Amino acid sequence: MFDELNEECGVFGIFGHPEAANLAYLGLYALQHRGQESCGIVSGDGHTLRGWKGMGRVNSVFKENFKFNERLPGPNAIGHVRYSTAGGNDEKNIQPIRVDYHYGEVAVAHNGNLVNAEELRSDLETQGSIFSTVADTEVIVHLLARSKAPTHEDRVIEALNQVKGAYSLVILTETRLVAVRDPQGFRPLALGKLDGAYVVASETCAFDLIEAEFIREIEPGEMVVITEDGVKSYKPFRESPPAPCVFEYIYFARPDSRVFGSSVYEVRKEMGRQLARECPGDADLVIAVPDSGMPAAMGFAQEAGLPFELGLIRNHYVGRTFIEPRQSIRHFGVKLKLNPIRSVIEGKKVIVVDDSIVRGTTSRKIVKMIRNAGAAEVHVRISSPPTTYPCFYGIDTPTRKELIAASHTVEETCRYITADSLGYLSAKGVHEAVEKYVGSDVHHCDACFTGDYPVKFSGLANLDQISLFDGGERE
Amino acid sequence: MFDELNEECGVFGIFGHPEAANLAYLGLYALQHRGQESCGIVSGDGHTLRGWKGMGRVNSVFKENFKFNERLPGPNAIGHVRYSTAGGNDEKNIQPIRVDYHYGEVAVAHNGNLVNAEELRSDLETQGSIFSTVADTEVIVHLLARSKAPTHEDRVIEALNQVKGAYSLVILTETRLVAVRDPQGFRPLALGKLDGAYVVASETCAFDLIEAEFIREIEPGEMVVITEDGVKSYKPFRESPPAPCVFEYIYFARPDSRVFGSSVYEVRKEMGRQLARECPGDADLVIAVPDSGMPAAMGFAQEAGLPFELGLIRNHYVGRTFIEPRQSIRHFGVKLKLNPIRSVIEGKKVIVVDDSIVRGTTSRKIVKMIRNAGAAEVHVRISSPPTTYPCFYGIDTPTRKELIAASHTVEETCRYITADSLGYLSAKGVHEAVEKYVGSDVHHCDACFTGDYPVKFSGLANLDQISLFDGGERE
Amino acid sequence: MFDELNEECGVFGIFGHPEAANLAYLGLYALQHRGQESCGIVSGDGHTLRGWKGMGRVNSVFKENFKFNERLPGPNAIGHVRYSTAGGNDEKNIQPIRVDYHYGEVAVAHNGNLVNAEELRSDLETQGSIFSTVADTEVIVHLLARSKAPTHEDRVIEALNQVKGAYSLVILTETRLVAVRDPQGFRPLALGKLDGAYVVASETCAFDLIEAEFIREIEPGEMVVITEDGVKSYKPFRESPPAPCVFEYIYFARPDSRVFGSSVYEVRKEMGRQLARECPGDADLVIAVPDSGMPAAMGFAQEAGLPFELGLIRNHYVGRTFIEPRQSIRHFGVKLKLNPIRSVIEGKKVIVVDDSIVRGTTSRKIVKMIRNAGAAEVHVRISSPPTTYPCFYGIDTPTRKELIAASHTVEETCRYITADSLGYLSAKGVHEAVEKYVGSDVHHCDACFTGDYPVKFSGLANLDQISLFDGGERE
Amino acid sequence: MFDELNEECGVFGIFGHPEAANLAYLGLYALQHRGQESCGIVSGDGHTLRGWKGMGRVNSVFKENFKFNERLPGPNAIGHVRYSTAGGNDEKNIQPIRVDYHYGEVAVAHNGNLVNAEELRSDLETQGSIFSTVADTEVIVHLLARSKAPTHEDRVIEALNQVKGAYSLVILTETRLVAVRDPQGFRPLALGKLDGAYVVASETCAFDLIEAEFIREIEPGEMVVITEDGVKSYKPFRESPPAPCVFEYIYFARPDSRVFGSSVYEVRKEMGRQLARECPGDADLVIAVPDSGMPAAMGFAQEAGLPFELGLIRNHYVGRTFIEPRQSIRHFGVKLKLNPIRSVIEGKKVIVVDDSIVRGTTSRKIVKMIRNAGAAEVHVRISSPPTTYPCFYGIDTPTRKELIAASHTVEETCRYITADSLGYLSAKGVHEAVEKYVGSDVHHCDACFTGDYPVKFSGLANLDQISLFDGGERE
Repeated sequence: MFDELNEECGVFGIFGHPEAANLAYLGLYALQHRGQESCGIVSGDGHTLRGWKGMGRVNSVFKENFKFNERLPGPNAIGHVRYSTAGGNDEKNIQPIRVDYHYGEVAVAHNGNLVNAEELRSDLETQGSIFSTVADTEVIVHLLARSKAPTHEDRVIEALNQVKGAYSLVILTETRLVAVRDPQGFRPLALGKLDGAYVVASETCAFDLIEAEFIREIEPGEMVVITEDGVKSYKPFRESPPAPCVFEYIYFARPDSRVFGSSVYEVRKEMGRQLARECPGDADLVIAVPDSGMPAAMGFAQEAGLPFELGLIRNHYVGRTFIEPRQSIRHFGVKLKLNPIRSVIEGKKVIVVDDSIVRGTTSRKIVKMIRNAGAAEVHVRISSPPTTYPCFYGIDTPTRKELIAASHTVEETCRYITADSLGYLSAKGVHEAVEKYVGSDVHHCDACFTGDYPVKFSGLANLDQISLFDGGERE
Repeated sequence: MFDELNEECGVFGIFGHPEAANLAYLGLYALQHRGQESCGIVSGDGHTLRGWKGMGRVNSVFKENFKFNERLPGPNAIGHVRYSTAGGNDEKNIQPIRVDYHYGEVAVAHNGNLVNAEELRSDLETQGSIFSTVADTEVIVHLLARSKAPTHEDRVIEALNQVKGAYSLVILTETRLVAVRDPQGFRPLALGKLDGAYVVASETCAFDLIEAEFIREIEPGEMVVITEDGVKSYKPFRESPPAPCVFEYIYFARPDSRVFGSSVYEVRKEMGRQLARECPGDADLVIAVPDSGMPAAMGFAQEAGLPFELGLIRNHYVGRTFIEPRQSIRHFGVKLKLNPIRSVIEGKKVIVVDDSIVRGTTSRKIVKMIRNAGAAEVHVRISSPPTTYPCFYGIDTPTRKELIAASHTVEETCRYITADSLGYLSAKGVHEAVEKYVGSDVHHCDACFTGDYPVKFSGLANLDQISLFDGGERE
Repeated sequence: MFDELNEECGVFGIFGHPEAANLAYLGLYALQHRGQESCGIVSGDGHTLRGWKGMGRVNSVFKENFKFNERLPGPNAIGHVRYSTAGGNDEKNIQPIRVDYHYGEVAVAHNGNLVNAEELRSDLETQGSIFSTVADTEVIVHLLARSKAPTHEDRVIEALNQVKGAYSLVILTETRLVAVRDPQGFRPLALGKLDGAYVVASETCAFDLIEAEFIREIEPGEMVVITEDGVKSYKPFRESPPAPCVFEYIYFARPDSRVFGSSVYEVRKEMGRQLARECPGDADLVIAVPDSGMPAAMGFAQEAGLPFELGLIRNHYVGRTFIEPRQSIRHFGVKLKLNPIRSVIEGKKVIVVDDSIVRGTTSRKIVKMIRNAGAAEVHVRISSPPTTYPCFYGIDTPTRKELIAASHTVEETCRYITADSLGYLSAKGVHEAVEKYVGSDVHHCDACFTGDYPVKFSGLANLDQISLFDGGERE
Repeated sequence: MFDELNEECGVFGIFGHPEAANLAYLGLYALQHRGQESCGIVSGDGHTLRGWKGMGRVNSVFKENFKFNERLPGPNAIGHVRYSTAGGNDEKNIQPIRVDYHYGEVAVAHNGNLVNAEELRSDLETQGSIFSTVADTEVIVHLLARSKAPTHEDRVIEALNQVKGAYSLVILTETRLVAVRDPQGFRPLALGKLDGAYVVASETCAFDLIEAEFIREIEPGEMVVITEDGVKSYKPFRESPPAPCVFEYIYFARPDSRVFGSSVYEVRKEMGRQLARECPGDADLVIAVPDSGMPAAMGFAQEAGLPFELGLIRNHYVGRTFIEPRQSIRHFGVKLKLNPIRSVIEGKKVIVVDDSIVRGTTSRKIVKMIRNAGAAEVHVRISSPPTTYPCFYGIDTPTRKELIAASHTVEETCRYITADSLGYLSAKGVHEAVEKYVGSDVHHCDACFTGDYPVKFSGLANLDQISLFDGGERE
């Protein structure tokens, strides 16, 4: 999959470090792939919280001379990177959300998606709540504010017991950092340590950059409370079978991260090997759609005993906006980012490995590009099953009718993308690859392939019409 | 007074015009003097509201190619200009505030200050409300959202019956524009018409620019509701004696505006004449501290039979930021904006007229500047009484201890500013000047001179310590 | 005249001050009215020159945190403000121009216009010179570079002996600052002193801001050379009768400046008095077109014994760009900047004083605006003669055919601008007003009224077709 | 080599296409890797040339809404991307350089470096030339302008016969596009065709993006003149043996480009295979320093029969500026860009392949990073010989004393970078790899390994002290 899906968010938290906000900045920088359109940090100095956020990538929001000590002082901080639709005014939706409420100040950053957010929001509005954003996070903040429970921990628990869906949360108050993962543990969240301070992050690659030591993952349904007195762990929610998102392995997480108990790179490469076993191909060489297809392509090539080559070069200077000439250059958008190496491809039977197909339009352009570079045959292999259902737990997939595999057979899709053959990894194959590294105790959520949604909600009735963000973009 | 006081805000509203947001922009542009640090517009198309706001002046927030039709479509709009302390993150406080709530969407822009905002805020937080800004406006929005009254009008009334203080409000929902002035009518608000659409604005100069016709002022305690069916007027509040702010006449409003029933220029000039009668001076000529002191200086000169000259030239290229050389140029800040004309002043006995003295530091610099240009004598005349009490109804005056006149006699102040003589217009003189143009029915609020606050509140007990924005700037 | 003519430039120089570039910045700031579209500073540390320049006003090119000490170090500096047509790429034309040449480094800033620039340029190109800008200044630099004279002073003299026209120049090398005024002395240039350092500036208002002491004006035909050894004065050019530009008095220079031997304000006011004597009017009051018409209007009112009032208020928040609504607001451009005070004007016979009329379109809008505000009669009085000829000595007037007075009688112009009467000050009256303050020794250039050009050139043959910048804007 | 060397430039030209400037923009975009700090385009419409340039990457200088048709109209265009030292004022050095001269207008863009630029510049200055930039290109423009030859072609030839060194030039006048490669052909330059228009570019990847057809390379010593009448080829220089830069194969050119007669990817991979033959290693796996080390690493792995793995992940969100926390994170700069995959490396004997070592500091950080990720052994293999001499033909290498291999043996270098072993490809191996693809007719310049400079110049005497840009950065 090439620039078609967008992870919703990445979160980071740190408690008790003299350079908290600066390290949060670095953590977000390492998590940039989880959301590139806005970001923010809220810091706390024990008395008050201060925030800074903006549209754009981490190092455009926090520019060269950003004075972390002046603007975001204090030993505690949380941060957030986010994917969102463009538009100047969406700034209000940028996280973390920081508010004043009865108990002082609180800031929340959220990765995931609540499936009952609309109902809760409507209930809260009926009770007189006002909403300034369209973020689910604001629902959580309202629930926190309305709770009469005596302690902050109890209020968090009371609030979260009302929400359903996916959330990996970091919550900062004047005196504590709370990190929570929903009972299913859809999204990753890891705990680490640096110079005596505790850190939490969506992925361990954030720890690597700041040289924090990985301790363990926050468990599904676990709430970790970090104060000056140390770390306390709670399991306050009704237990339910975990369902971590298998797509983190397939595409989202960085290959150098460790999530859900395993190296992403190893699982991803094993998926490629399994794909080679399930859908071999008669070819001269294997190439990847870079960068996300690389590990699977390498696994495929190794298993198939075929040479792995760089057949497509990615242009890494691509910015957000671009000027297209009036003449329609064929496949312009893809061309800007990928260019084939003719000498590798010309006259060859090529297997091209990608991790997924969403709408099919990009795959079609890539196949044509490879063929124009002289390939004799183009065989597409996908290291995941056909994506046939939208995700409601935090990944911005299109509606069903836009998912090519929801309405087309593999053969039809193959014809549409103009490939000589098309093979998908089976759902079984996916799980086997995962199990090889993390064992078979946990069943990973694969609703996007199977429609088997671990957390039900009313919207599922009319599945064809909805997607994660239906109705949400009201501003 | 020269750049020492800051009006809080200006508001604008328009209902039923195909270019609503563009005209709101022009209206805010004409109201720019009422707040230069941030601004915003919310438009409505009958179904939904859309907003755009930012730090900076109107034509930096809405830049050259701003697409009003795309970004702020619809025939209705409200806008706001605001003075605020600097700081990137204060963006959250920019008005209008737009929220989702039980009854749909609503946006509010507010000029004034509530004296019971802190109590209301605290009550609301106890009930579970969260606050995203430090603006009083958000309190009003919460009260609106919590009202169970059946109609929008009733909810506005119920909300406003709980607040005390100064407010000229414009409220936009999907289907109506509501304009309200508090029972005392502290701040101005005028109603006009343009091409069949209704407009409201803090000052009539906003009507002039867009060529709207001035109909009448919104009355103290009046709520005007504009819908597709036309205009309805309500007087829903317990009646109390009006108390429009006399400082709008003295300094704030533009001289080409009409507020509280009279031309600002005429009243301001009459104050100068009255000042000449009360505090004449033996001098060769009269000069003004430009621009605000001009009308009073001209009135003074005419009444005194002395020549009026341009003795100080204002540099109109002054921007917000400036680089001061390490060597301390004397009176640098004032020098950047004012320069004396030596040929006018040299060897002369000069009367210099200004509208008020706040801290005294600027007056001191101006007197020294005039003296350095060779004046034989410098006589300062102020077209208002000594400012001795802070304002709590929307003007950002400093605390009492910073007001030079609160702790110093006229003679001491004269000595401090190094003038040869100093004369203030009496409170009686102020009221007479006003009455000459608007009659004697209405007593204008003069609390800043007399300490006689028309709307009481708990904070008045410790008057010396507080000012309008104490405690407010929490971000 | 209101925003119709544009002075070409202002220059500043300082030699021997530890904060040279910072003070140059302040000097340019005070000269901002002489050119608002680009500016630049070149500093010298005794060994090398460094420059910084950009499009925009002084405090957008040198922003808040500009590090003068790092970027523009050294005790010497020259600076320039410039009017120019817009366009991103015109940046190459921004002055000072700094180059490497046989004798080291040199930077030049120029106010004025050479009438034989095109011929010189063509000659130089024939000899193999390349030109990077369209500025006359570059011609001077080439002549400097090609001179074989032994000393820098001789090279400057040799170069300037080849050019004809108007120039007030500042030239910076590693070791000296040279300031020169052309033999006619068309443009002003003053010499001052600050903390032992020498300063030069187009107008004395630049000295006021930095608290430099005014010493004297550089004389027409004088070259002043400032080195570590002090100041030397030369008169290297063939003597010719001086011809300082009378329009500096009428419009360009700031009223608080002293140029050509007199206070600008006094001369300007005397022109108003003379105008009242030459063209009295039966009226209730006198108003000015602000800001440039103010002194003349005040002089007029005093002489005529009529009250002077503020009838038009200028909006000082106007920025460079603006969004016009689709509906054509009448006289929109003027409306943005000026608004009448109805209470002053309504029902009155009004004399409105301005300093000049160029195309007549703006005057027409202003007359209509005053009439719409209820004036019974509008009598326009202009404190200069009809502008009938273009300037070739540094003022950007339009071609003859665009000058309304070049092709229309006063009566026709009066009808065009829809005034009840129109009166101009006579050329004789202008000179008398000037002579009253500076004596009758010097005849000021009045070519724009009389067509009597002190420095002839080939282009004068086809006067109707050309203006100062014909052919110039080649980029 | 990882971010240590910087190619000087890339050039592009197009003649006779209705969207010339827009396509030039795309061409520069594809050449972005050859210079990321400034860029510019000059277009011609048959009568005049217009330019746009700025500091920054192609899509920050030409922003989203850039109006190519308005700002850069005409069917002809040349463009340039450039590496340069930072600094706002270096804008004057941005290419193309466009000037007016005796024969009209001309613009020049240059890739390479002249070894006699300083002498020529000095001569020209003696003759009265002024220099506005420090670019060699300006020397060429002056020589062009001073030529008295009758035709443009002759003037170009006359000018270039005086310069020595490396140049791939594109020159645009009102009516023609000239593309020249120096007699040695140090830098690449290719000719293509698109919709009947001719295009030239430093690398063929620029043709791929705009879908131009590759025709052939411009030959060493060839001058191609493109006019409305078509293409003419000249060989006007004294013949000398070609010496194309072997480093284009090793590092600079994009792997998807074709330069000097071969696919870059194939040569680069062959260098890896040859490296495996020359310096095998006892290891478990091979990894690359991405991205430039990838092809060689893959070739190495294939030849060595070892698994190729992704051991280092490159973060592609890296921007130009970054905030380092006060605590010194170890190897911070490299960490921002590279992160190891622990699961790949842990416990393994790793061969890491890179293309070159310059100073050694980055290699040292990378080795430590790999070791920290748990590698049992780290064997470094470099697909080029030790870099011991600076380049004077267009690559910005440091001075000899900074080149670690110039003063250290391989063993010492190995110890410094803390590797278990270090192996370089031999110069002979390099040439064999090249010859395999392009034949043995041409000897490629390898002066950076051998000190055998094909074009001599006076500076070679004191080789230890100088580098390409010594003396150049005068601004």
